Amino acid sequence: MKSLVLIGSGNVATHLAKQIAQSSYTIKQIYSRNLENAKALKNYLGIQEIEVLDNLEKIQTDADFYIISVSDNAIESIVNNLPKSIKGLILHTSGSTDINIFQESSGEDKFENYGVLYPLQTFSKQKEVNFLSIPFNIETNSADNLQKVRELALSLSPKVLELNSKQRMSLHVAAVFSCNFVNHMYVIAEKILKENHLDFELIRPLIRETADKALIQSPKEVQTGPAARKDQIIIQKHIDFLQGKTEISKLYMDISNEIMKGSH
Amino acid sequence: MKSLVLIGSGNVATHLAKQIAQSSYTIKQIYSRNLENAKALKNYLGIQEIEVLDNLEKIQTDADFYIISVSDNAIESIVNNLPKSIKGLILHTSGSTDINIFQESSGEDKFENYGVLYPLQTFSKQKEVNFLSIPFNIETNSADNLQKVRELALSLSPKVLELNSKQRMSLHVAAVFSCNFVNHMYVIAEKILKENHLDFELIRPLIRETADKALIQSPKEVQTGPAARKDQIIIQKHIDFLQGKTEISKLYMDISNEIMKGSH
Repeated sequence: MKSLVLIGSGNVATHLAKQIAQSSYTIKQIYSRNLENAKALKNYLGIQEIEVLDNLEKIQTDADFYIISVSDNAIESIVNNLPKSIKGLILHTSGSTDINIFQESSGEDKFENYGVLYPLQTFSKQKEVNFLSIPFNIETNSADNLQKVRELALSLSPKVLELNSKQRMSLHVAAVFSCNFVNHMYVIAEKILKENHLDFELIRPLIRETADKALIQSPKEVQTGPAARKDQIIIQKHIDFLQGKTEISKLYMDISNEIMKGSH
Repeated sequence: MKSLVLIGSGNVATHLAKQIAQSSYTIKQIYSRNLENAKALKNYLGIQEIEVLDNLEKIQTDADFYIISVSDNAIESIVNNLPKSIKGLILHTSGSTDINIFQESSGEDKFENYGVLYPLQTFSKQKEVNFLSIPFNIETNSADNLQKVRELALSLSPKVLELNSKQRMSLHVAAVFSCNFVNHMYVIAEKILKENHLDFELIRPLIRETADKALIQSPKEVQTGPAARKDQIIIQKHIDFLQGKTEISKLYMDISNEIMKGSH
């Protein structure tokens, strides 16, 4: 049975840990800067054998895998403070962090075996996620390691894809648009409705239909609405309606202009 | 059986007509500026008894309902050119057109009976829509007419809501954000992926999960991503990645700033 050390205890680490705990891989240790968080994750998993720690020096050096699942700007410091004697495969789970974070600026490898295991999904603590639908995007420093990460990833999801760092970055940027920014559009809609004493529930069928369309068609081909029809009169009415809300009306105009140009 | 004249043959008119044809209301005439479009809609419905016309003067004046389902900037001209002797209830289906389009600027009614029947949904010719989930938003010039429109709307969907013109406008603006602008975010994601030789399919599970979250929670409470974490390093990486794409990177920055401010 392959052994694994988990570094991190946030949303992604939590969802990953839960899935790994159901696989053939064994979590030996959970590290967190804050020991309480590591304990909480251990308790959540309900696995008494897991050792929790808040000191990177105490990480065992003979595990098969080390998964660094921390906020992006903490990865480098973790990498630099891991025991140098680690021979196992060290992976980070970040979309926008180049694999070369495991190299010195000279290009020399900091560790023998390293790579990336990036699950493309939006994880929130409140909601279960179906791992079967999550694409795992992998990259490693050698073909041998690629095979090992592929096996690990396949134990978590059937969708495993080899991407280079630039492709992974593009995927992350695309995810920001189609997830985080989409959600922000929902936030604005909710705000506008609320101000007019209308329930967000009213617009949920539309949200579902819009997403459903994108699941089966190219979004470029199914665009509708005032901007797609170049209906300047309605656009002006909406801008008038949004008077006083500077950022929202600016966003309305900018996105409408882009849709009218049809430039993407 | 109540009789109905349909004015228009576009997406909304087509979907409405199909649903009305299955109700207890009878479509007597279909008007379109372009007779061929009216004929096409009649054939699509497969109802031989429907008369098609491209001349507003030939509209029969004794129908129970007149539904004006044309592009927003064509409504006024239709209203002004309908036979003055119409006593039936005249409705438009626009989200952003005030009910006072049926009045002179003096405030005098142009017709005795009028109102609005606004179905909130994104209709495209290519995809069937489940009317059961569509909220129909209604407004009329009298309580009597409200009851008539409510009956008509309830024959199309169980979700019928009385909204005034300002609320309907707010609903339309909210719809633009959560449907049209959301779809534009998908369009940008698709473009970025394509440029990096990645399939849009890769991001579809994320699109589904993001919409699913909004269907059960308040979007404000489930925002994730670099901006929600105020992760300036990743944001900068993404802006660098988008170098050369002026509009997309401007949009990225504007929306990220809004999310970071948490102002909505």
